[in-house]
Amino acid sequence: MLDIRIETTTTPKELPKADNPLKFGTIFTDHMFVMNYETGKGWHDARIVPYQPISLEPSAMVFHYGQEMFEGLKAYKAEDGRVLLFRPDKNIERANKTNRRICIPEIPDEDFLQALKAIVKMDEAWIPTKQGTSLYIRPFIIATDPFLGVRPADTYLFIIILSPVGAYYPEGLNPVKIWIEDEYVRAVKGGIGEAKTGGNYVASLKSQVKAHEEGYSQVLWLDGVERKYIEEVGAMNIFFKINGTIVTPKLNGSILPGVTRDSVINLCKTWGLPVEERRVSIDEIYEAHKSGTLEEVFGTGTAAVISPVGQLRWEDHIMKVKDGGIGEYSQKFYDTITGIQLGRLEDKFNWTVEVK
Amino acid sequence: MLDIRIETTTTPKELPKADNPLKFGTIFTDHMFVMNYETGKGWHDARIVPYQPISLEPSAMVFHYGQEMFEGLKAYKAEDGRVLLFRPDKNIERANKTNRRICIPEIPDEDFLQALKAIVKMDEAWIPTKQGTSLYIRPFIIATDPFLGVRPADTYLFIIILSPVGAYYPEGLNPVKIWIEDEYVRAVKGGIGEAKTGGNYVASLKSQVKAHEEGYSQVLWLDGVERKYIEEVGAMNIFFKINGTIVTPKLNGSILPGVTRDSVINLCKTWGLPVEERRVSIDEIYEAHKSGTLEEVFGTGTAAVISPVGQLRWEDHIMKVKDGGIGEYSQKFYDTITGIQLGRLEDKFNWTVEVK
Repeated sequence: MLDIRIETTTTPKELPKADNPLKFGTIFTDHMFVMNYETGKGWHDARIVPYQPISLEPSAMVFHYGQEMFEGLKAYKAEDGRVLLFRPDKNIERANKTNRRICIPEIPDEDFLQALKAIVKMDEAWIPTKQGTSLYIRPFIIATDPFLGVRPADTYLFIIILSPVGAYYPEGLNPVKIWIEDEYVRAVKGGIGEAKTGGNYVASLKSQVKAHEEGYSQVLWLDGVERKYIEEVGAMNIFFKINGTIVTPKLNGSILPGVTRDSVINLCKTWGLPVEERRVSIDEIYEAHKSGTLEEVFGTGTAAVISPVGQLRWEDHIMKVKDGGIGEYSQKFYDTITGIQLGRLEDKFNWTVEVK
Repeated sequence: MLDIRIETTTTPKELPKADNPLKFGTIFTDHMFVMNYETGKGWHDARIVPYQPISLEPSAMVFHYGQEMFEGLKAYKAEDGRVLLFRPDKNIERANKTNRRICIPEIPDEDFLQALKAIVKMDEAWIPTKQGTSLYIRPFIIATDPFLGVRPADTYLFIIILSPVGAYYPEGLNPVKIWIEDEYVRAVKGGIGEAKTGGNYVASLKSQVKAHEEGYSQVLWLDGVERKYIEEVGAMNIFFKINGTIVTPKLNGSILPGVTRDSVINLCKTWGLPVEERRVSIDEIYEAHKSGTLEEVFGTGTAAVISPVGQLRWEDHIMKVKDGGIGEYSQKFYDTITGIQLGRLEDKFNWTVEVK
């Protein structure tokens, strides 16, 4: 149990107006959670303080060797006024898995959850209520030793910031166009692909820029070894509906284990919808599209929840899916997951955690 | 040509004493070079200011998505009093190659060199002169937009800090023991392995910790696809002398193109010593060791210049090289390169650049 010291801001900011479109990740609340780590002392000095800049030595290891991790989850204001987190246990589990992979000291699960609840409670007034909005929660850890040698750091900052957000894609639940990358690689087995750390994201930028220039909003990655198996989208996991079966790439060490991905798989099983986690080659998708059995494609992620995919481009092949529209199951998964998140639908899985 | 504004410190620090062993990367000089970038304005506000902390928003992109690059080079005080940089053009060329790979705006070569010279000149008094010491120069760029979406940033800081250093390995030109990693992967073709960016270093930490626990100081990486070809050491490139020929892995897209690596290859050519850049499998090294033709192994890098390797461990095989001692060529490359760096030997290649 953390002993969280609280310092309330003396200069509260104005809350965003209800008609503010809330561009993703640009507005931050009045407070942040901070906790320090030092070898020998462990995690200590848990506190909620006014949202403020971080001051670090120029030699701080995070600026040089990328020892940084993050998570992303959301808090919702239910219609009955309750504040709900969606599956925070999964984010905490993944956070500590990332920590182990990149040699950051773990945070006890119960302390992590306590911190999440405390900061959300503190800035509860910032949770937006308009359709499609939520309070995005960004926990992250950075290595702060002022030292230029390469080794795991001895000092860290764990910080949680909050951002009221609208839809991740300005177009809302509108189909996105996806570029299948065949030159660059995001991650490979044995690397850091299944960890939520900056190195995976920086590796994706160049492809993303290329895709944007061609009018595509996201990149779909192929595996780095055989360059033929589908991995993930970087900001999302990917699902296909092929001939009545929901198919998604199996977690293989280079794919991020998404929380929304896991939720969709669970829903399929409950609904009696056939679902397969397995290797999926780009050739299989190409052939399924050609034969007319590629019925739906959608991405899953915390930011956008479900993103229907209306078009895939692989080399010179342009594959339209659902005539560029929204698939029946994309809509159903979106409605069900957001329904549970907002407390509108019964939460049979106990996925939501109330912040009291 | 940059217009560099200079703000001199009013509280100069005490210079390290001549007998200070100068642990690598822990002491920093009185000033730093800083320049800002903003989309639309380009690189601007070049300045030398007192060495000081950096203040960033918690949402600064560098903390989340790893968009950061760095370089490392050294300044030496020659016996005749000249201040020499070693091949800064190669570092600048590589820096801009890294920038292109991870979507950071390039810095014009001549501005980069001017900045290096200006900051070294400013803190020239900090260049140590004892045998084996130098002034380590660390240019780096970080993405600073306060924004949680994944895309290349619109704002950056370019900073150069300086650190008087002794030998990178406390043991000096003493043979190191190297662990050949067969579980984790540093980088793969199509990824960011040839860029000098944090993501490659964070990926290496877990193996490094494992190697240290087993008494090995560094990790030698195999390729991420076939898991059999030798890549690099993370902080160094690797060379083998096999049956009279110097052999090093060919640059393949996942290996960092080292400046010292290039210098060694050039020296081989001048000396008429056979040198090959090609694929080198771990099996070849194992067989060469068994047959007695593995004559020397050494690493090359800016920090340590040359690191003789006295022992390699691959799976359960422990391969002693040169009976754990220093090879003739390891010593010769070290003496020649440091001799040129310190202005003691004739610089036939025009590798050194004087700071006036």
